[in-house]
Amino acid sequence: MRTLLILAISLWLTACGGAERATSGDTQATQPQKIYKWRMVTTWPKNLPGLGTAPERMADEVRKMSNGRLDIRVYGAGEVVPALEVFEAVSQGTVQMGHGAAYYWKGKVPVAQFFTAVPFGLTAQEMNGWMLHGGGLELWRELYDRYNLYPIPCGNTGVQMAGWFNKEINSLEDMQGLKMRIPGLGGEVFEAIGGTAINLPGGEIFTSMQTGVIDATEWVGPYNDLAFGLHQVAQYYYYPGWQEAGPTLEIIVNKEAWDELPSDLQAIVESASLATNADMLAEYTARNNTALRALVDQHGVELRRLPDDVLEAIKEVAEAKTAELAEGDDELVQRIYESYQQYREGVIEYHEISERAYINARGS
Amino acid sequence: MRTLLILAISLWLTACGGAERATSGDTQATQPQKIYKWRMVTTWPKNLPGLGTAPERMADEVRKMSNGRLDIRVYGAGEVVPALEVFEAVSQGTVQMGHGAAYYWKGKVPVAQFFTAVPFGLTAQEMNGWMLHGGGLELWRELYDRYNLYPIPCGNTGVQMAGWFNKEINSLEDMQGLKMRIPGLGGEVFEAIGGTAINLPGGEIFTSMQTGVIDATEWVGPYNDLAFGLHQVAQYYYYPGWQEAGPTLEIIVNKEAWDELPSDLQAIVESASLATNADMLAEYTARNNTALRALVDQHGVELRRLPDDVLEAIKEVAEAKTAELAEGDDELVQRIYESYQQYREGVIEYHEISERAYINARGS
Repeated sequence: MRTLLILAISLWLTACGGAERATSGDTQATQPQKIYKWRMVTTWPKNLPGLGTAPERMADEVRKMSNGRLDIRVYGAGEVVPALEVFEAVSQGTVQMGHGAAYYWKGKVPVAQFFTAVPFGLTAQEMNGWMLHGGGLELWRELYDRYNLYPIPCGNTGVQMAGWFNKEINSLEDMQGLKMRIPGLGGEVFEAIGGTAINLPGGEIFTSMQTGVIDATEWVGPYNDLAFGLHQVAQYYYYPGWQEAGPTLEIIVNKEAWDELPSDLQAIVESASLATNADMLAEYTARNNTALRALVDQHGVELRRLPDDVLEAIKEVAEAKTAELAEGDDELVQRIYESYQQYREGVIEYHEISERAYINARGS
Repeated sequence: MRTLLILAISLWLTACGGAERATSGDTQATQPQKIYKWRMVTTWPKNLPGLGTAPERMADEVRKMSNGRLDIRVYGAGEVVPALEVFEAVSQGTVQMGHGAAYYWKGKVPVAQFFTAVPFGLTAQEMNGWMLHGGGLELWRELYDRYNLYPIPCGNTGVQMAGWFNKEINSLEDMQGLKMRIPGLGGEVFEAIGGTAINLPGGEIFTSMQTGVIDATEWVGPYNDLAFGLHQVAQYYYYPGWQEAGPTLEIIVNKEAWDELPSDLQAIVESASLATNADMLAEYTARNNTALRALVDQHGVELRRLPDDVLEAIKEVAEAKTAELAEGDDELVQRIYESYQQYREGVIEYHEISERAYINARGS
């Protein structure tokens, strides 16, 4: 009943898709309040498990918490703008909100990659520590302010897989000459060891593998890769995902739209995003093993670990490539690099005696 | 201005600390709404970093998101009820809400320990997977419903330390005969290997060590242990924390109070708790190493790893003790045990090729 009434008021206030301030009452307790109808564009296929359902979950939570006062409609890649134009669309105010990954914008903002993932970088737990209590989020907001955007962490897949190949990888040479879908700094590392990196949105991977546009691909992990059917276009499935150990997904909000929201709705958006940030990781954590078992046991996928010397070679290149991100005379870029690196060093030192020591003591 | 007016209305509606329904309007848009004034009791010293500040953070978020419609006042241990009476106080409705850890109630509800931590159990990330996408939370709610409580995960410390000792632990014999503060199933394991386990709330640990009531203690990790000054009463600091790899803290809500909340405020409480659940882990992750360095470099604490054979012996006892929790003919207890164990097996199998494979490949 209440929902219906709110919906009716919402429709009345927002005819033509816009939003009008009905009154400027001092309290929500006594006056009708403005209803906000927002659009969120995403870089994912509509409702893709995890990546695509997380923004829907976030929008649902906001709707519930705000009693319908902030109503966000979520669009899949290509429905309003193509996947890789989400950043521009939100920056320019075509839509109020977007969901994607900061490293997709590396062509425009190379240093943004620290806010998704860099090779041999932070795990999900470690990323959240940097973001929420290590200064990362403040730096991210300072950076995105230049682009008229307000970012909020909203999702993490955990450690990904190294990817799908159609041949065994026994040495670095086996990776050379391959055309692989691998975005972000991982892609640059892949180029530095002799491959060709291609940045494709998720929705284009399967066909590109099938038609031979690419020879290899990484996507996420078993839960998503099974859904995409990648086992139908590649036989060998490699781990561990050196390129993305805990990629943070992002909500980006157009600054004018953000500033227009009353503070209670701002708090609701932040909380829903942070709760979804954690919820997505929980979903992958709970679903990946069943999907992996299906891939290996039912579909005959060959599960392989990258050889030590390949991982070591990649690690060396990764360090150099990461340091290159800090070149130039932009002092904010310097601060981001230094904050990340200093935090990374400390948290790895600590996890030697906590997370790492524990899971090795627990064994398999 | 808005806040002041809401505060005034709130005070007017809730004179004498109670709460009255002002009207029964159909929408928040047109009618004054009930203001809820709640009390939350906790098992922690008021504002203790992490454990104690998390419920304050959660209450702040709820206040912001609800525009003051749900105003939760947080009390430290002993302010309204002693730490270990939080469960009863919320169950009976003395207060509406509590924050603590399920394993504190093991005397009354042994199986509740699965919802905090069991020895050699799940890490924080794995716990969240079980809770939010592996059926854990539904089972927890079914269990606590018997006690008139509605639980929500609200905090996690990550892998803890094994504890503080005044002598080196070179064999199982060195632990025998010790009186140690160690709650939950960890305590039972400690008893099974020949020690005496004592369950003390955090606020009583320092004095109990100082006066010799206990010989050893575990508390949390460097961030909290430094704040308590435990380095002043013990010299050896052992890892890894086999007894608590990812303890979930709990918000518990009295069922009648919960059912009385309108659905938007329920959604706000859930979201604030889940966001705080993640935020606390982020705080410990970001703060522990600095605290550890202070303990070791400034206070001369001796950092030690428990020997392999001690860890192996503990692991064996832990398995048996965990299985004992499932004894008896309570089918809900059976389902909780089976759900946890089945999930644990799958997630450990998966983390062999993801989290564990990655952090070992990354190295130190």
